[in-house]
Amino acid sequence: MKITVLLYDNMTALDAIGPYEILSRLPSAELTFAAEKEGIVRTDTGFLGLQATAATSDIDSTDILLVPGGPGDRQVRENPELLNWVARMHETTQWTTSVCTGSLILAAAGVLDGLEATTHWTSLDTLGSLGARPTLKRVVEQGKVITAAGVSAGIDMALRLTQIIAGDDYAQTLQLGIEYDPQPPFDAGSPEKAPQHLVQLLRDTMLDAR
Amino acid sequence: MKITVLLYDNMTALDAIGPYEILSRLPSAELTFAAEKEGIVRTDTGFLGLQATAATSDIDSTDILLVPGGPGDRQVRENPELLNWVARMHETTQWTTSVCTGSLILAAAGVLDGLEATTHWTSLDTLGSLGARPTLKRVVEQGKVITAAGVSAGIDMALRLTQIIAGDDYAQTLQLGIEYDPQPPFDAGSPEKAPQHLVQLLRDTMLDAR
Repeated sequence: MKITVLLYDNMTALDAIGPYEILSRLPSAELTFAAEKEGIVRTDTGFLGLQATAATSDIDSTDILLVPGGPGDRQVRENPELLNWVARMHETTQWTTSVCTGSLILAAAGVLDGLEATTHWTSLDTLGSLGARPTLKRVVEQGKVITAAGVSAGIDMALRLTQIIAGDDYAQTLQLGIEYDPQPPFDAGSPEKAPQHLVQLLRDTMLDAR
Repeated sequence: MKITVLLYDNMTALDAIGPYEILSRLPSAELTFAAEKEGIVRTDTGFLGLQATAATSDIDSTDILLVPGGPGDRQVRENPELLNWVARMHETTQWTTSVCTGSLILAAAGVLDGLEATTHWTSLDTLGSLGARPTLKRVVEQGKVITAAGVSAGIDMALRLTQIIAGDDYAQTLQLGIEYDPQPPFDAGSPEKAPQHLVQLLRDTMLDAR
């Protein structure tokens, strides 16, 4: 099973690495990190370099496409070559997936036209303006297209996709392998649960950045 | 705040990238990925390269040390230079932390002598044999030493550390920022909750690998 993860500068690392940690362990997985050019991609904090071992132009097809999000999604959405590549890959995939604002890239590539989809909660309006039907759910399945909400939601998405592809036992074994038994110190992971002054603070900050 | 994440070949990426995504956003964070040599470290699946931008020998002190786990922990535990470096860093830290079998490295460096600590659930016996008091908890705090259980537990550990360092509001804002509102399709993330035939399967497999 050929899995391709798109990398780009100013992306959010966990969007890609969460699902990678699971999907790379699917039966017969061959996973490739691809960027516009081979080499190091620098993530949004500036502190981390991830290695792209392939250029997107060298990849003609993939069984699973994963598009992560992050502030750099804007530059990708303004890059016709990359959007064309995403659209071409989507024609070849069994599954096309995104995490966080990766769905804005899928939408800009025409993949989400008229489909229900999710994204980081601060970007739902932008997702709607790009032709999708935004929804505040953690994982949204529409045929072969699966979108996940912000950053950490990619872990849940990948476990769900593993369940579909390889079955309940396989998915549970991977969950147990990465000991995914979440116990955060707070229950503040969604705008519906977090203190509202923090929701407002983050909404203002992140919308400014867009 | 100077944060250093140890990288090494055959490590598990999410052990490092989960906490990185949170700790890198602490106030005044300066985070460095360091390995025995600068350059690309290849993680345990073989599919991912992470860039070390510093050699451990170039780092004399750090406020937070994070040691991830993975099958490669064994090679680190057999590397006296790296163990000495970990022990020296620990003398300078405000917080010394590990994820998964990263705690075996801390133990081998003498950091956990007599302390309660955790690790991946399949490695609790090994942790005990290295001088710590193993416990099946997700996050264990002992003074300035914080150990986390397998792989994904590093996210919970980093949120707890953020709470201690920067307060409740700050930690909740970061949790909301990465939309950490876990909704896995199964409740199989610990050996106490997963189907017992899968626990046995994974225990046999992973113990074979050690």
